Amino acid sequence: MHDKLDEALLRVRPFVETLFDTLRQGSVDNSGGVVRASYGEGEQFAHNLLRDEAINLGLEVARDAACNTYVTLAGSSRSHPKVVIGSHLDSVAQGGNYDGAAGVVAGLAALKVLKSCGVCPDRDLVVMGIRAEESAWFQTSYIGSKAALGQLEAAALDARRIDTGRTLADHIQDAGGDPAQLLSGMPFLDPAALGAYIEVHIEQAPSLVYAGNALAVGTAIPGNFRYPEITVSGETAHVGLPRRFRRDALAAAADFAASMDKLWESWDESGRPMALTIGRFHTDVNNDALTKVPGVVRFSIDVRAYDENDVLELQNEMDSIVADIEKRRGVVFDYGSRTTAQVAFMDEVISSKLYGIALEQGIAVQHLPSPASHDAAVFCAVGVPTGLLLIRNENGSHNPDEALSLDDFMAAVDVLIRWLLQFAPSPA
Amino acid sequence: MHDKLDEALLRVRPFVETLFDTLRQGSVDNSGGVVRASYGEGEQFAHNLLRDEAINLGLEVARDAACNTYVTLAGSSRSHPKVVIGSHLDSVAQGGNYDGAAGVVAGLAALKVLKSCGVCPDRDLVVMGIRAEESAWFQTSYIGSKAALGQLEAAALDARRIDTGRTLADHIQDAGGDPAQLLSGMPFLDPAALGAYIEVHIEQAPSLVYAGNALAVGTAIPGNFRYPEITVSGETAHVGLPRRFRRDALAAAADFAASMDKLWESWDESGRPMALTIGRFHTDVNNDALTKVPGVVRFSIDVRAYDENDVLELQNEMDSIVADIEKRRGVVFDYGSRTTAQVAFMDEVISSKLYGIALEQGIAVQHLPSPASHDAAVFCAVGVPTGLLLIRNENGSHNPDEALSLDDFMAAVDVLIRWLLQFAPSPA
Repeated sequence: MHDKLDEALLRVRPFVETLFDTLRQGSVDNSGGVVRASYGEGEQFAHNLLRDEAINLGLEVARDAACNTYVTLAGSSRSHPKVVIGSHLDSVAQGGNYDGAAGVVAGLAALKVLKSCGVCPDRDLVVMGIRAEESAWFQTSYIGSKAALGQLEAAALDARRIDTGRTLADHIQDAGGDPAQLLSGMPFLDPAALGAYIEVHIEQAPSLVYAGNALAVGTAIPGNFRYPEITVSGETAHVGLPRRFRRDALAAAADFAASMDKLWESWDESGRPMALTIGRFHTDVNNDALTKVPGVVRFSIDVRAYDENDVLELQNEMDSIVADIEKRRGVVFDYGSRTTAQVAFMDEVISSKLYGIALEQGIAVQHLPSPASHDAAVFCAVGVPTGLLLIRNENGSHNPDEALSLDDFMAAVDVLIRWLLQFAPSPA
Repeated sequence: MHDKLDEALLRVRPFVETLFDTLRQGSVDNSGGVVRASYGEGEQFAHNLLRDEAINLGLEVARDAACNTYVTLAGSSRSHPKVVIGSHLDSVAQGGNYDGAAGVVAGLAALKVLKSCGVCPDRDLVVMGIRAEESAWFQTSYIGSKAALGQLEAAALDARRIDTGRTLADHIQDAGGDPAQLLSGMPFLDPAALGAYIEVHIEQAPSLVYAGNALAVGTAIPGNFRYPEITVSGETAHVGLPRRFRRDALAAAADFAASMDKLWESWDESGRPMALTIGRFHTDVNNDALTKVPGVVRFSIDVRAYDENDVLELQNEMDSIVADIEKRRGVVFDYGSRTTAQVAFMDEVISSKLYGIALEQGIAVQHLPSPASHDAAVFCAVGVPTGLLLIRNENGSHNPDEALSLDDFMAAVDVLIRWLLQFAPSPA
């Protein structure tokens, strides 16, 4: 079997390369970046490509009411708790080809290899192309995976996509889905019918590059709180206004950003893992000028950590920083809407198996808490044993220069296949 | 004479009120703010209004190649060095009715009063409605006054207005002016033919409100350096990227803003007058998101002080702050274009006369360095003895709530007229 497997792994490489190329060509924009907006054209292209390739491979294809795509290699028992191998097919704007999609391609490559080796697992192995993971578009997370598991909040359907201004419900409808069904209490995936969820994803920091390892087994996914738009209101004034009279929204917001960064620096120094990002930051484009003290600044913030108490402590620290600045600078911070995600811990049995297989195969591997959020967190939250396999990636993610070597990618496919063979062995 | 003058001052009040109302109605936008863009519709309306009112009053009207408007009460000698009473008629976007225009209305009211009293001065008294003082539009200062005095740099004609994207030359042409003439070396105003320049302007900080004084005699106009668009370049990255790997343009730019504000705080504490304003500040609207570390931030800065050595020291301090941040954060600051203005000192004889007249009239008055830039600085720079009279203003300037009481305004007109009578007495 294992000689046959090694051969099949070699044979699948051109398929993988072509699939990545096709995916890129179908979703690249004129900036050279990849754009697969949640429920946008590029994402639709990727789902259609997944469907077409799966049918060519003789696999079963299904789509749920949120337009997630499911590709199944049928097992000897159809009722045995399935394995879902999932990742998302959307990207941020000016993103790269691999963040999300690499996990779906890895799953499809694994099914192709298993099928070509004549493997019939003891249960269904399902590759899931997930919709709308990137919260950049609807300012809310995990839309596709939450919808599949019946976890989507009703309010999320009213969220408007940042570029089109249209609601999530409208976008789902346009893609051929059924938004009303998603709130029916009858989700497409029943957590009790799932034996495991596993996600392959490129790393989003160059930790593996620096460590010289091809793969990492993810140990946890950070919890976070996010404010898509905090508004700082002071008073617009003339450029000559003395400092003591100013209620300068920019000085206040910059003070906030600098204070939060100092907080992070001190956590870093004491070895407490966290991250914070102020991704959007704007004075009022309709009322800002070289010679005006800004009266309004709007910005987003994402704060994440690996322990619920840490997340809570960070929120409290942020509140103190804000209260202090409001008092000192005569401005008001309006937090606007807030979203949160809980810390998710990966299943220890799955993780140690993945790690062991990598070691056996001579692949340089380590454990690593994921710096990023992943759909895996949603499966984890509903009690599905979950594993996460991270692949070395040279230039960070969420940018056109994401760089994945085929060898590293195939190492992940190798580990994934061998884990599937253990978890869902042929009944024979 | 002085009884007659007091009566005429009372009689001119309704004229002033109506003129301010007409001006506001002709240039207010639907936000309730006043918009008189440099070489825009609202400014054109104001210049036409000045022309029409002047003709109704039987005064001479002229326009130069930059479309500045000149209204003259002819003196007994036409060749004696004239007095120019000037201010600008443009405003910032969402501005107020008084910043700039109040000085022109004061001048016109003064000429109306003098004419109604039958005064024939010994020289021409010229009210000058100046174009394009607000650098918010073309990102360059004093366009109208520089043009009138032959001081406009050729490059300024290529500056593009921030909203229309069209060049200053095109805008001047559209308004009926002649951009080529402005570079001919034959300016409309010959500095040697000017005996004095005096500017009435609302205060731009509530210093007089706090001090309880109606008027201030300006002592100096700050020098400045300005960067309309500094670009901070780092690296766009995923929200999960650890701090040590980041080259975060937002963190760097916020650090810069906070450090400059600390510098100002320390100057304030040691009583050294200066001001700095970061008026525009944006992450890249085409590539920013809740879940992306910003790779680019663009912002403007204006730094001003009352001593050339202070201006120089501030530039050096800023350079050190930038160098330190570049080193610590792996980002690059590109300063872009730079403009400067020299510190301008008001004429001591004119200033002490204005101050003395106010005291005699029982008007609460003080000396004050102007926090803002004014066209007066340009006249000062070419050697014209210059005076500045600031009027109390409740809510700061450059916003729709600029509030000028008619009594305070008339106090300024009173002082202006009595100074004109001293400086340019009837030959009798």
